[in-house]
Amino acid sequence: MRETWVIGAASNRFGKMRETGREAATEVALAAIESAGIEPRQIGYTFVANAFGVAEHQAHVGPLINTGLGIPEVPSCTIESACSSSSAALHEAFVHVSGGFTDAALVVGSEKLSHLDTLAATSYFACGADYPFETKNGATFPGLYATLASTSQPAYATRPEMFGAIAVKNHANGARNPHAHFQKPISMETYLASPMIASPLRLYDCCPFSDGAAALVVAAKEATPSPAREPLVIRASARAGSIAGMHDRPDMLGLPATRAAAEIAYRQAKMTPRDIQFAEVHDCFTIAEALALEDLGFFPRGTGAKESFDGTTARDGRFPVNPSGGLKAKGHPVSATGAGQVVEIFEQFNGLAGARAVPHAEIALAHNVGATGGSCSVHIFSRR
Amino acid sequence: MRETWVIGAASNRFGKMRETGREAATEVALAAIESAGIEPRQIGYTFVANAFGVAEHQAHVGPLINTGLGIPEVPSCTIESACSSSSAALHEAFVHVSGGFTDAALVVGSEKLSHLDTLAATSYFACGADYPFETKNGATFPGLYATLASTSQPAYATRPEMFGAIAVKNHANGARNPHAHFQKPISMETYLASPMIASPLRLYDCCPFSDGAAALVVAAKEATPSPAREPLVIRASARAGSIAGMHDRPDMLGLPATRAAAEIAYRQAKMTPRDIQFAEVHDCFTIAEALALEDLGFFPRGTGAKESFDGTTARDGRFPVNPSGGLKAKGHPVSATGAGQVVEIFEQFNGLAGARAVPHAEIALAHNVGATGGSCSVHIFSRR
Repeated sequence: MRETWVIGAASNRFGKMRETGREAATEVALAAIESAGIEPRQIGYTFVANAFGVAEHQAHVGPLINTGLGIPEVPSCTIESACSSSSAALHEAFVHVSGGFTDAALVVGSEKLSHLDTLAATSYFACGADYPFETKNGATFPGLYATLASTSQPAYATRPEMFGAIAVKNHANGARNPHAHFQKPISMETYLASPMIASPLRLYDCCPFSDGAAALVVAAKEATPSPAREPLVIRASARAGSIAGMHDRPDMLGLPATRAAAEIAYRQAKMTPRDIQFAEVHDCFTIAEALALEDLGFFPRGTGAKESFDGTTARDGRFPVNPSGGLKAKGHPVSATGAGQVVEIFEQFNGLAGARAVPHAEIALAHNVGATGGSCSVHIFSRR
Repeated sequence: MRETWVIGAASNRFGKMRETGREAATEVALAAIESAGIEPRQIGYTFVANAFGVAEHQAHVGPLINTGLGIPEVPSCTIESACSSSSAALHEAFVHVSGGFTDAALVVGSEKLSHLDTLAATSYFACGADYPFETKNGATFPGLYATLASTSQPAYATRPEMFGAIAVKNHANGARNPHAHFQKPISMETYLASPMIASPLRLYDCCPFSDGAAALVVAAKEATPSPAREPLVIRASARAGSIAGMHDRPDMLGLPATRAAAEIAYRQAKMTPRDIQFAEVHDCFTIAEALALEDLGFFPRGTGAKESFDGTTARDGRFPVNPSGGLKAKGHPVSATGAGQVVEIFEQFNGLAGARAVPHAEIALAHNVGATGGSCSVHIFSRR
């Protein structure tokens, strides 16, 4: 298996895109290729992540992007794994490149739903759940994650301020990130005064609907020994699944797919959670960040939210989490989210993170969840 | 690279499914695993092909299928490449298995659109085209393929009866296939009397909208040395792309992506077109079969339709093409089509093709096109 790197990365500002999903995808793909210092013709395979292109009347986006890049002959496919689509696409790129099937692959995630009304957009999002058992009966993601929160909260006496601390921290980070959908800090008072969406989750516990696009160039070390930027060495690329419908799971105090993917990832990387210096985790809701920190082994069960409240996961804390602002503040453009997490790590490693730079950026982890955890990807990156 | 086999395959009857796409997918997946003589727990990755699950309010189908199979922890993703989605998924499975990332992978394609009216179904199909340039201006696939036909026809003096011969032949084959949507032969008179859809394409030049599901089990020879059935040895798994919008292509006398994928496939397999004994090709329209036979190198440019008229490509002809009935008669359930082609080859190699058995079944090719050829997959299979 060949040593495989992320040698280029680019993102637009998440939020509301005027351009179409394919246009944004092509733009960030070109920017990622340029950041890698290579030519489009060096790309051997294009993996697009795009869950809801039909909302723009557009499936089969790969050939359109490749045509825009001037490499129409390059094969492509679209990868969908709900909110973990672009980390699943990264995994395919990793397999192709590390397995020697191609020297360089493009990963580009893009999603646009802002032209739809909220009900229509929610309906697309909800396609990630288990339709006949969840969506059809009125469950949407705020409700499903609220179920996780209301299971965890009494079990561990998590106070509202502990969830709030996650939101406040991620907004503080997002305020320093030019890619972020929300670039304004919020106070605990603002959090606590925000309306209840699905008890115990308030408005500021929930990530926004965002448009966005993010791209990565994945290449074999031996094929690109001198990339233009400091590459991310992919030390682990792991994926796992779990029972899709939340009602059938034996345990609601975490996401089994996260635990399974993390176990594989740590084994692949020959690391433990203690080796990781910062992490981008999937905080579609504040409870999701709390559970992720526990499932990934960073903190004991039941303490994920408390550690945020104690400041441990702040940008300048002992273990920074979501220095980008996370899904909560940076935004959550479904199929661009996972790639966007890796863009953040790429920028941190390359001294491009500006005011949101974390103190120690040598080894980082990205954690991306599909829906309520039917799928999960965990990637671990280090410097050369 | 490890020798990689298709060790199990199963399909439902294409046409109109009462069950949902995920239910059908789970059923054929289990049948494919059973045909391989292995247990679901031996599957290491599930690749689902499903382009238009949102039409059933359901994305993120992999975890649902895996949960149904009793292997929820197994990672999965959905692959979309328009009508070539499940051959693209087969390619991913091939890469994972031959590259040593897993010993066995499941490929399952499923599509259901029959609960929609024809306009809505057409709108989903049309998402495979280049929206702002094609679909938005009224182009749908019959019109786009009619453009190919009306370019090719005068150039090569193709008579209507030559296209008709493809339809008549594929309906004759479909009549012998219990998986086929249409199991009735048609006469040349019926073909010629059928209404014009998009000149020069008549009703019987066009494949139907079909629901359907088909599944394959892909495994390393070294991991499953004694499968229950005669395996298909994957001698080539090749994909390529081309300029997405037809208006921008320099040449309309064929599909550049087919030529590119075929060239890679023959090189991988160390074969020439003469080595192939029969083929399943992508005949979404009769012109598509004619062009495929030329682009794949089986017949000289401009003679694909004529060879069908001359009987060369009949089931008992010198070079059988689409013994399954092809998309034309077997049906075209978008994301199940490519896997369905491989099910046909599996059944031919295993003496399970009954009345549609071809005389020589040692080496076969499957050709699957996305939309008007923005993507193409070519697979070559042999016996052990």
